[in-house]
This record gives sequence, structure tokens and C-alpha cells, in this order.
Amino acid sequence: MWEDYEIGYLDRDLVPLIALLNRDRDIYTTSSCSGRIVVVDGAVPWVREEADVIFKSHTPVAWSDIEFIYKTPPHRGYWLVVTGPILHFSTTSIKKAVSLLKKARIAGFKHSGIMHISTTRGVFVELVTGVYMTQLIKTRNLDVVSQHDIVEVLALFNRALIEGKQRLQRLYEVFENNLPESPDLEVERELSSRRVEIALRKPIEVFYEICGDLCREFLRT
Amino acid sequence: MWEDYEIGYLDRDLVPLIALLNRDRDIYTTSSCSGRIVVVDGAVPWVREEADVIFKSHTPVAWSDIEFIYKTPPHRGYWLVVTGPILHFSTTSIKKAVSLLKKARIAGFKHSGIMHISTTRGVFVELVTGVYMTQLIKTRNLDVVSQHDIVEVLALFNRALIEGKQRLQRLYEVFENNLPESPDLEVERELSSRRVEIALRKPIEVFYEICGDLCREFLRT
Repeated sequence: MWEDYEIGYLDRDLVPLIALLNRDRDIYTTSSCSGRIVVVDGAVPWVREEADVIFKSHTPVAWSDIEFIYKTPPHRGYWLVVTGPILHFSTTSIKKAVSLLKKARIAGFKHSGIMHISTTRGVFVELVTGVYMTQLIKTRNLDVVSQHDIVEVLALFNRALIEGKQRLQRLYEVFENNLPESPDLEVERELSSRRVEIALRKPIEVFYEICGDLCREFLRT
Repeated sequence: MWEDYEIGYLDRDLVPLIALLNRDRDIYTTSSCSGRIVVVDGAVPWVREEADVIFKSHTPVAWSDIEFIYKTPPHRGYWLVVTGPILHFSTTSIKKAVSLLKKARIAGFKHSGIMHISTTRGVFVELVTGVYMTQLIKTRNLDVVSQHDIVEVLALFNRALIEGKQRLQRLYEVFENNLPESPDLEVERELSSRRVEIALRKPIEVFYEICGDLCREFLRT
């Protein structure tokens, strides 16, 4: 986790929750995302072999950030996509997984579930919200959403992104009351020796910080 | 299931798969959907308290079917949404659930998982694909997608719907090789006494049948 964090691979607003989960000896997080807006060039917006992510942001997006899509034609089609937070972790027991799932559902992660169970790698859990929407912006032949209207569409997508961040905060609050059940002493030592202040803050605070002026302005409206 | 089917509540193209699953003594299906296109009136397209489904179709949608959205302003905003198939069932053992999950993933149901485990109601499984997209068509103030462009957008949504139906067919093929593991004799008796021919056909065949001319025309292009 620290390696990911230091090379900037881990979203900063995920750090408090990821740290909290890993402080439990029976939980081990893997790839996760705090929620993001992307532009995909593809025939369909669900990413797979033939679709490329050409823009990505974990904070609200300004019109000027994606203006370039009106200057270059897509290979297939430009899609704006907003995705709520997604967390992945393995845990040692089914009982623990089920208990965490129940809590996550309360926090608005309604599509969460156990994805795999293996004797070697434990119980693999995915926590995911229903916060997800897409908008086809243009195809090779057609501007589906005009440069004038994209501002209104972006405002909706930014609002959905923030809704996702708020659920991340709620998840943190629900888990904070219950974890760590059995502290992982090595992680606790690591956390205090590195004095990782970010790990002790609330996800939404970190988000507001990285979000900057645009976000504050946005939240006022 | 038969009650649901007879009152038209169960999508016809789901019947073969639902019948196949229930023929296994250890599997009990609940609410499921073969994939659909809807129009939602809401601030966001994920359905909840403050959003209404105002149009719904389990087969491809023609422009004339949804022309009405340009004649009546929305309360909040009209969203076109396509969702791939979703299956829900309970099973008696975790081992069985995990084995079915693995098979479902091969068939393209990549976001599937165990949602709950309870001693009384067993292991509750959701099988779901990543086939999902939305398009904001108009708000109270703005036609985001023009009447001219909606035809191209609909074509993409119809294609995604069919992609979902194809995955349903693949799921049927994968399960057909493995189920029923332990036949439920009552269901088997019921199936043969009612001579429900539809339960013996392939999902994609039933889909083509209910889909009609539009679908055939669509598949030619």
C-alpha cells in the first residue's frame, strides 16, 4: 500500500479507509478506486480490449479539462463515465466477509458481494455502489452532446462523483466503529513510525483538499 | 414461477434459464430480468425513491416507441438506460454458489457475487454482467440529445441489449452442461405435466421470437 501511495498510484482520498481496513489482521486490501470520471473512446463505455481510457480524474472535472474531445475525432466514440467508489479486499473468514458486507450495504454500497472463495487466498469481497452513469458525447460522424450542453452534463456527473465520495465517507464511518477487530501489530507500528497523518483523517476531508477551488465552488451551487 | 409467467410478469426469454435452475433441488430463483431498455425520469438514472420508470422494454426499441419524450417535459430529466440480464437465486451451500459463480463469470457475468448468507434462507447469489449504459436525453430546460441524433443513440442501446441477451444464452449453455446436479422431482413432474415447451428452448431463440421484425432487421445491419 505505501509503495502504491508513494508513487501516486493510490487515490489520496482512499488512504484513510485502506489504512483502516489493513489495520485488521484478517483483512488485506487489493486494487480499489475512490470514484472517478473518465472519458473512454470505444463503441461501448464498459472498458475492455477495444476501448481506451483517454482522460481520468478522481476530482470534479471542468469543461476546459475535456475541451480537447471536440478537437480530435474519436476512433469509435467518446463516452463520459462516472463511477462511484469500488473497494476490493480479501478476508480470512466467510463470517467476517458477511458481517462487513452488511455494514457496507448500510453505507450505500448496495451492489457488494463475495466474488471468490479460495482456500489459499481467502474470501474475496467487492464493495460497490450503484453510482454509475455514462453519456455518449460524440461519434465519428456526430456531436451527440453540443459544446454548449456539455457544461450541464458535466455538472450532473460532478454531482454524482461527489455522491460517491460521500458514500465513501459513510463507509469509513461505519467501519470506523467496528475495525480493527484484531489489530495487525505490524501495520499499527508502520502507521505510527511513518506518522502518516493522512491515514488518520476523514476521506471526505482529504477529498475536499485535493478537490480544490472547483470543488468548493461546486458545493456552493 | 408459473404464476409469474402466466400473469406476464416473467420475461419470456428468461423462462428456459429459470426453469433449468429450478430443476436443481438446491437452487431457488427469485426476481430476475433478461435485460431491458428503460426511460427513467429522475435527477440521476439509478432508480430510487425519487426516480420513475416511465417506459420499459425487454426487446429493441424503435424511435416511435419513445417519441413521446420530446412531447412532454420531464419532472427532472429523461434518461435512456440499458441493463444486461440480472439473475437472483438462493442455493443451499457455499460450495455450490462458488462453483456457479465461476461458471457465470466464464459466460460474461463478471460482476456476480454472493450477496447474503443466512442460516434460514441460504446463500443468495446475484449474477450480473457489465452491460450497462445511460444517456441523458433531456432536462427541463434542454434537449441534450436532438430528435435527429436519438436514432443513432438508440441503435447503440439496442445493440447493447442484444449483447446482454447473447450473454444470457451463453449462461444457459454453460449451466446446461452442469445442471441439474440433483434433480428436483416435483419440478420435473410439473414441467412434463404442463408441457411447457418454452422451458425447453434456448433463451436466444425465445428472444428472437418476441423481438419480431425490428430485431431481425436490426440484426441484419
